[in-house]
Amino acid sequence: MLSKEDNEFLTRAGKGTPMGEMLRRFWMPALLCEELPERDGPPKKIRLLGEDLLAFRQTDGRVGIVEPHCPHRGANLYYGRNEQCGLRCSFHGWKFDVDGNCVDLPTSPPDSGYKDRIRLQAYPTREWADMIWVYMGPRETMPELPQLELGLVPAGHRFVTKKWQDCNWVQSLEGAIDTSHFSFLHKVLATDDEAARRAMSRAALSDQAKPDDRVRWVQNDPRPRFSVLGHDTGLVIAGGRKTDGPELYWRIAQFLMPSHAYTPAAFPGEIYYGQTWVPVDDVNCWIYTYCWQPDRPLSNSERAKFRGGFNVHSEVDADYKPLRNKDNDYLRDRSVQLTENFTGITGVSEQDAAIQDSQGPIQDRTREHLGPTDIGIVEFRKLVMGTARRLAAGEPPAAAHKASRYAVRSGGWIAAPDKDLATVMTERFGHDRGYIGNQYGLGD
Amino acid sequence: MLSKEDNEFLTRAGKGTPMGEMLRRFWMPALLCEELPERDGPPKKIRLLGEDLLAFRQTDGRVGIVEPHCPHRGANLYYGRNEQCGLRCSFHGWKFDVDGNCVDLPTSPPDSGYKDRIRLQAYPTREWADMIWVYMGPRETMPELPQLELGLVPAGHRFVTKKWQDCNWVQSLEGAIDTSHFSFLHKVLATDDEAARRAMSRAALSDQAKPDDRVRWVQNDPRPRFSVLGHDTGLVIAGGRKTDGPELYWRIAQFLMPSHAYTPAAFPGEIYYGQTWVPVDDVNCWIYTYCWQPDRPLSNSERAKFRGGFNVHSEVDADYKPLRNKDNDYLRDRSVQLTENFTGITGVSEQDAAIQDSQGPIQDRTREHLGPTDIGIVEFRKLVMGTARRLAAGEPPAAAHKASRYAVRSGGWIAAPDKDLATVMTERFGHDRGYIGNQYGLGD
Amino acid sequence: MLSKEDNEFLTRAGKGTPMGEMLRRFWMPALLCEELPERDGPPKKIRLLGEDLLAFRQTDGRVGIVEPHCPHRGANLYYGRNEQCGLRCSFHGWKFDVDGNCVDLPTSPPDSGYKDRIRLQAYPTREWADMIWVYMGPRETMPELPQLELGLVPAGHRFVTKKWQDCNWVQSLEGAIDTSHFSFLHKVLATDDEAARRAMSRAALSDQAKPDDRVRWVQNDPRPRFSVLGHDTGLVIAGGRKTDGPELYWRIAQFLMPSHAYTPAAFPGEIYYGQTWVPVDDVNCWIYTYCWQPDRPLSNSERAKFRGGFNVHSEVDADYKPLRNKDNDYLRDRSVQLTENFTGITGVSEQDAAIQDSQGPIQDRTREHLGPTDIGIVEFRKLVMGTARRLAAGEPPAAAHKASRYAVRSGGWIAAPDKDLATVMTERFGHDRGYIGNQYGLGD
Repeated sequence: MLSKEDNEFLTRAGKGTPMGEMLRRFWMPALLCEELPERDGPPKKIRLLGEDLLAFRQTDGRVGIVEPHCPHRGANLYYGRNEQCGLRCSFHGWKFDVDGNCVDLPTSPPDSGYKDRIRLQAYPTREWADMIWVYMGPRETMPELPQLELGLVPAGHRFVTKKWQDCNWVQSLEGAIDTSHFSFLHKVLATDDEAARRAMSRAALSDQAKPDDRVRWVQNDPRPRFSVLGHDTGLVIAGGRKTDGPELYWRIAQFLMPSHAYTPAAFPGEIYYGQTWVPVDDVNCWIYTYCWQPDRPLSNSERAKFRGGFNVHSEVDADYKPLRNKDNDYLRDRSVQLTENFTGITGVSEQDAAIQDSQGPIQDRTREHLGPTDIGIVEFRKLVMGTARRLAAGEPPAAAHKASRYAVRSGGWIAAPDKDLATVMTERFGHDRGYIGNQYGLGD
Repeated sequence: MLSKEDNEFLTRAGKGTPMGEMLRRFWMPALLCEELPERDGPPKKIRLLGEDLLAFRQTDGRVGIVEPHCPHRGANLYYGRNEQCGLRCSFHGWKFDVDGNCVDLPTSPPDSGYKDRIRLQAYPTREWADMIWVYMGPRETMPELPQLELGLVPAGHRFVTKKWQDCNWVQSLEGAIDTSHFSFLHKVLATDDEAARRAMSRAALSDQAKPDDRVRWVQNDPRPRFSVLGHDTGLVIAGGRKTDGPELYWRIAQFLMPSHAYTPAAFPGEIYYGQTWVPVDDVNCWIYTYCWQPDRPLSNSERAKFRGGFNVHSEVDADYKPLRNKDNDYLRDRSVQLTENFTGITGVSEQDAAIQDSQGPIQDRTREHLGPTDIGIVEFRKLVMGTARRLAAGEPPAAAHKASRYAVRSGGWIAAPDKDLATVMTERFGHDRGYIGNQYGLGD
Repeated sequence: MLSKEDNEFLTRAGKGTPMGEMLRRFWMPALLCEELPERDGPPKKIRLLGEDLLAFRQTDGRVGIVEPHCPHRGANLYYGRNEQCGLRCSFHGWKFDVDGNCVDLPTSPPDSGYKDRIRLQAYPTREWADMIWVYMGPRETMPELPQLELGLVPAGHRFVTKKWQDCNWVQSLEGAIDTSHFSFLHKVLATDDEAARRAMSRAALSDQAKPDDRVRWVQNDPRPRFSVLGHDTGLVIAGGRKTDGPELYWRIAQFLMPSHAYTPAAFPGEIYYGQTWVPVDDVNCWIYTYCWQPDRPLSNSERAKFRGGFNVHSEVDADYKPLRNKDNDYLRDRSVQLTENFTGITGVSEQDAAIQDSQGPIQDRTREHLGPTDIGIVEFRKLVMGTARRLAAGEPPAAAHKASRYAVRSGGWIAAPDKDLATVMTERFGHDRGYIGNQYGLGD
């Protein structure tokens, strides 16, 4: 339970808010690369952290993310011309490049020097791992890109897309790092094996070789034993559940600063999944969803499955809005709810979205009642709010500058009941916090 | 004319407002019984007095009206499962019964006792007279259900439905107790007998055996002589109009605390009509509309007529929104206005809705100019505002606890011109305030 | 660049604002005459300067513009009956004439005198130049109608219509008096003669006999030499551009208080164009667009061309909303932008609307950077803000009372490079400020 003030502190990301300033110290995805395919193509309106911006790819291929209004008379450069390495305003022809320099100002005499005093606000960008990343913080503290594993593997080994969500980013991320809800929200009701398998497939719940045991263990133990471990760039959040024997079945998620989370299911050799939240404003967010296979390229049929909505991937339209969404009540089907799954909603991603949106545009955390399965959420809040508080007091977030320490994995494991989480991590990943950067030459 | 402050006082019904607290001391219709037909059926989102709520009918048939957000993490129980005498949250399986008790809390150990400390806000409900009633006030002051006559007659003798309205409830109710507007708003223009009868029938204006005289008297006298009498549970509001002889034609309405009104037309042996206003919020309301025949069951053709929109009944869609409404300008037809009726709008209920909505979302009473035909409205305001003021000062509304004194009738009568209203009432109803509870064994 | 306070001062036109009070001292178009064709026809809802009003044409042909709510109980007279020289409320029959007099009050005794104490707010109206004009200021300072030339020529010599715009009126008018943007916003890209001519025709850019030179001169000189001259009722705003020889090509616009602007292109014998802005509220406006030919009637094919969207005229729907508008992104076509014109938007009026709307609902002038081509805008702001400030200090606007001095013209001319603007004006118009009222017997 948070005070009203703390809930505001946690969830508001506009310019000048403590959490908004903290987020602005990190690189964030602004677009998929595929959204700006064309050099000199039309500029695209985007909205990030409550700021309206324009993105465009100029003649030399570089991407600009800039304020939309021309400094001359405030006309929107969206109606401008993207040509010859710059965006030219349609009103009076003032022209700017991706760095915000005014490169032509035809309404004043060339020798007046006026052009050199005019600037357009522009944020640095990078293209990496099929996404266009933006840094919206102070230039002098700009860090390296975080070395998430999906960007370290060959391009053919990963799949990246995104999905819109109709609520504040924090409650959506909190849903992702709370892995206890798998025992309910994503439950399959069918009892005979064949029907259950069909339902799980339709529910986009499992692509594992032998899912039945693990799914059954998850569904049968609603009170996993939770452990949390901190590290340079985030938190390991793990829940251990009863198996058929004395061992514990561990599901180990990663939270990475400031808004990335990896799912807890992958066993060695399986596909890894992760998500990155980017606030559009305080009541909407983009979720970049991705998966990768370190050992081999993803097949075309796997890509088709992801595009159709599997695991954290949602089935989206051309604007990346999920087909099953708040406006159509997620196509909830009462007969499906009675016989097949817990909610009547098809798709793990859509079940998550429905329940997270239902918490309200911004969840009122003054009325919540957290319990033992919510300690991951508690530790997440401590970390991000503490980091934001320290930044407001003058101490920049250290994680932003530990780019290589983002090379971690999450996943599942079965271990003897007396082992602590660090030991289980070392068994599963070869490192007590899941660091695998050494496999990519990023140091130990 | 009210001050800005008094207008706010009169019209605001949110939690904590004086008028809202006053309303919350009375039972109010929350739904028609037919809206929750199924045990373990899907929960229904409703909004009452500005509060978002969920209604559901649990396995044993009892109806719950509860706050929508689960106390655990704020997920909306609308996405929950209504099963085995309770509503279970889809997020982590917490479960609540119609009384708000937490009956299962699977994420905490059963022996922790945590479940017993968790409650969901739940309001008491009753099913009566084809409606689900709710009491949203303090438990210790919960009264008996008001003994409106439609609930005392056999079920076959009554017809109950509801209609949506796009304005504040007070101005709509004020339109109902101001019976002088019948001389204008509901006027029929046709002059020859046959055309007038057709127009009246289309206008849903009269089902009386010999309507012509009464309708003519109403249309010809725009300044009825008004009298108002108070009683235990409300006001008798009567207007006397000239007839063809020396007698007065009395039309006698009832206002019953806090938001019921009966129409003034019924002669002995005719059908009685009434309405109950329930604020959705401050700019929308539900109007429960009903009629009853004490002496005989209503016929199927009468029920069909009511469903088609007759008298206070409106022709509504599956969501109880009138087919002729603000969004389609009430299907006002200019040629009808020129030749047939005063407004060009078909239906008494729709004519009322049009003119009441047109006063604005909340009528600005600082600019009104009341006259002698508005004394019913003045007395209504004195009564409800006085009751709300006294409640704010610690004195609960007495009417709420006089359940049996709600058994009253309204109606029409023709009387000698020198008789005062109490005498006319006694002639018409056998009681000077219209009380008929003794006919149902409720005492004298 | 304006301060936040000055930007508010300049753009807010509600009742009681300094600029709103200034505007209310002038006659403004409220409707086209064709919008109220019928005596005793249905009243029409309009909105002017943030005030909701009703317009109706009563039995004797006079037009009323009145507040919409009946003083009795606040019902909207829109649902009333327009009959026998007055508008009668449908609720209780109170009736008002175009001057706001209560001419019938049937709910009070005729001898009570109550009727004479009741008034409906009514604004004076005039029909002139195919428009219904309204005066919303104090009665005692009501001026004559401004003698714009389009009202002085025979009806067959003019064409008048209107168009909706989705932004504050000031930035739209500033776009019109800034004639330097023609070098960009309306630029035609096609290079061969035939293609350019086709593009210009599609762009609705020129109906002049020999447009090519002038269009070329405009497109080739993005830095016209600007001069501004004040006069009794407004400003002459002129830009001189290089021609093929030593002469300057002058384009001379007129701004007339408080919100009229004439385009700068017409040579003697050509058609004159003008526009009048009327705020609907602070973020929407009507633009009355008109043209006239002093020397001859306009032909049917010319009228068809204007109706199809030519020059300042836009192609509008039955509600006078442009077919190419903000909601459909002005049907901007990327391939047209690459090969044919600067914006990809068809139509001069639509190009203006797109860029003006894009400045925001109200342009943020605290971030603008004005230059030498913006001096017309600077002088316009000085004039209207100064007039509003003086009015607030008790000095009424003098221009309002110089009705005959509105008889001026704007237009183009080619002149020797050493001539000042007053000399050029005299050459072109026979008067150094463009006054032509003497041709209509309005004095010298």
